[in-house]
Amino acid sequence: MTNEIKLFTPATVANVACGFDVLGFCLDTIGDEMTVRKVDKKGIFITKSEGFNLPTETEKNVAGVSALAMYEALQPDCGFEIEIKKNIKPGSGIGSSSASAVGSIFGMNQLLGQPLNCEELIAYALKGEALASGAEHADNLAPVLYGGFTLVKSCNPVKILELPTPEDLFAVIIHPQIEVKTSEARNILPDKVPLKDAITQWCNIGSLVHALHTADYDLLSNSLTDVIVEPHRKALIPYFDDLKANALQNGALGCGISGSGPSVFALTKGKATAKKVSEAFDKVYSDSGINYHIYVSPINTQGIKIL
Amino acid sequence: MTNEIKLFTPATVANVACGFDVLGFCLDTIGDEMTVRKVDKKGIFITKSEGFNLPTETEKNVAGVSALAMYEALQPDCGFEIEIKKNIKPGSGIGSSSASAVGSIFGMNQLLGQPLNCEELIAYALKGEALASGAEHADNLAPVLYGGFTLVKSCNPVKILELPTPEDLFAVIIHPQIEVKTSEARNILPDKVPLKDAITQWCNIGSLVHALHTADYDLLSNSLTDVIVEPHRKALIPYFDDLKANALQNGALGCGISGSGPSVFALTKGKATAKKVSEAFDKVYSDSGINYHIYVSPINTQGIKIL
Repeated sequence: MTNEIKLFTPATVANVACGFDVLGFCLDTIGDEMTVRKVDKKGIFITKSEGFNLPTETEKNVAGVSALAMYEALQPDCGFEIEIKKNIKPGSGIGSSSASAVGSIFGMNQLLGQPLNCEELIAYALKGEALASGAEHADNLAPVLYGGFTLVKSCNPVKILELPTPEDLFAVIIHPQIEVKTSEARNILPDKVPLKDAITQWCNIGSLVHALHTADYDLLSNSLTDVIVEPHRKALIPYFDDLKANALQNGALGCGISGSGPSVFALTKGKATAKKVSEAFDKVYSDSGINYHIYVSPINTQGIKIL
Repeated sequence: MTNEIKLFTPATVANVACGFDVLGFCLDTIGDEMTVRKVDKKGIFITKSEGFNLPTETEKNVAGVSALAMYEALQPDCGFEIEIKKNIKPGSGIGSSSASAVGSIFGMNQLLGQPLNCEELIAYALKGEALASGAEHADNLAPVLYGGFTLVKSCNPVKILELPTPEDLFAVIIHPQIEVKTSEARNILPDKVPLKDAITQWCNIGSLVHALHTADYDLLSNSLTDVIVEPHRKALIPYFDDLKANALQNGALGCGISGSGPSVFALTKGKATAKKVSEAFDKVYSDSGINYHIYVSPINTQGIKIL
């Protein structure tokens, strides 16, 4: 049995317009690289952390915390070294902490002969996610592990639904290099929402799930609307309205805030349209004075990958 | 071409726990009988109305109002007589007005050679529904016409989604013979709801749609929860908590208020369990001093039927 595994741990988009706190999907061209190594010395050791100056103390590192939770539960007769090459900037809104939280334990599970199933892995990954965001949310974790579109039915017990991904679906992400604190993005939301808006939202998530099952792109487009969260949070993202308007004018199926921002996502049918939307995003930000990155990616239906 | 058509216009269940205002399904063993007849004399005439003493003036009768809306739009070179044998009590919560509103125009459309598609028919049926409930809601209309489970994506323009119905799904309905006014049932609801409850609700409707597509009865059961409306409305229905507890104890997948009540529905896998649940409902109400009817029905995947 191999003692070392190298992984691609993908970025993800949570909320997906109408699915605040429960929906997510997985990206393919953006992600971290992680190496997990089985060692004789007991314990969890973050032996390398490249990019973004993250702590290497196990208890302060997201990948370390999830690994430790699993390690303490399984009590294996070995230890693990973890190397992280971080490409997803923390606080970008595309699941940086989730990529780390899942990567370490997915690697450990592989090296131990897969004693745990995916829902059990999520339960440990939630501990890492909580370190980063202060709450146990699985809407980014689930797509890292399962790939495609996922719906988090429940976190305790963990119950994840794998939704079908229509072929030819692409995502475009723009990541403005500004900081939006998850806590700030949370606090900006009201405790109560109008019932009529909630009805619109649950109609849209119901129809989105149906659209994914039937590969109905028109319905997918009609369902990608957020009347609850976006009206509050978009104020935190410069030029959000322009990004959205330009994306839709250039053929995007929908456009919204990725996670708690500041990244913005669009979905498209086909790569050519994705390219057009990426150019539209670029046009909005090119004279803004704000640094930004733009990514085009097919939906990653596999999730985390062994390299 | 025939000049007369006899129809079975089925009762329906709207809301379906997690889908307030948008979800519905169609029943098979409960419904009205209607006859629509093409006549030379122009106009819409309610020539017979049996049961529940409903008005026969066209403008005051739900079937008449929807028929009139369609008639005025199409301006055919004939008139129509409508006979109604009403079996679904108005105000029962199982779509009495929707059965009438759809029946007349479905019959007329057949006799005219089907010039209109289903979504166009719904647009006229909404006028009849508005007479009864004061608002244009299609959550009962859609399952009458399409059968099975439906999701009303939009009323203007009309957009109805037909969801798959797992085989072997049965409904049990108890209709306590008490009056719950739709307006009262509406007024009891708050204008605003907690965001955390709304999230639970849209997670449930998303997973319910997935459960219908995958014929996953366990997930269906886990999704049939209403944290928004039921806590308020159940006070209007005597012994609601007992009905629900007994239904679930006897194997029901879920149990909730049908439409705005007072009827209560349960869904089951298989007829034998439906029978047990109907007995459980019966037990709760048998000593209550309240008159009631109980119905067991498979899900009607066809909808309105030509007899």
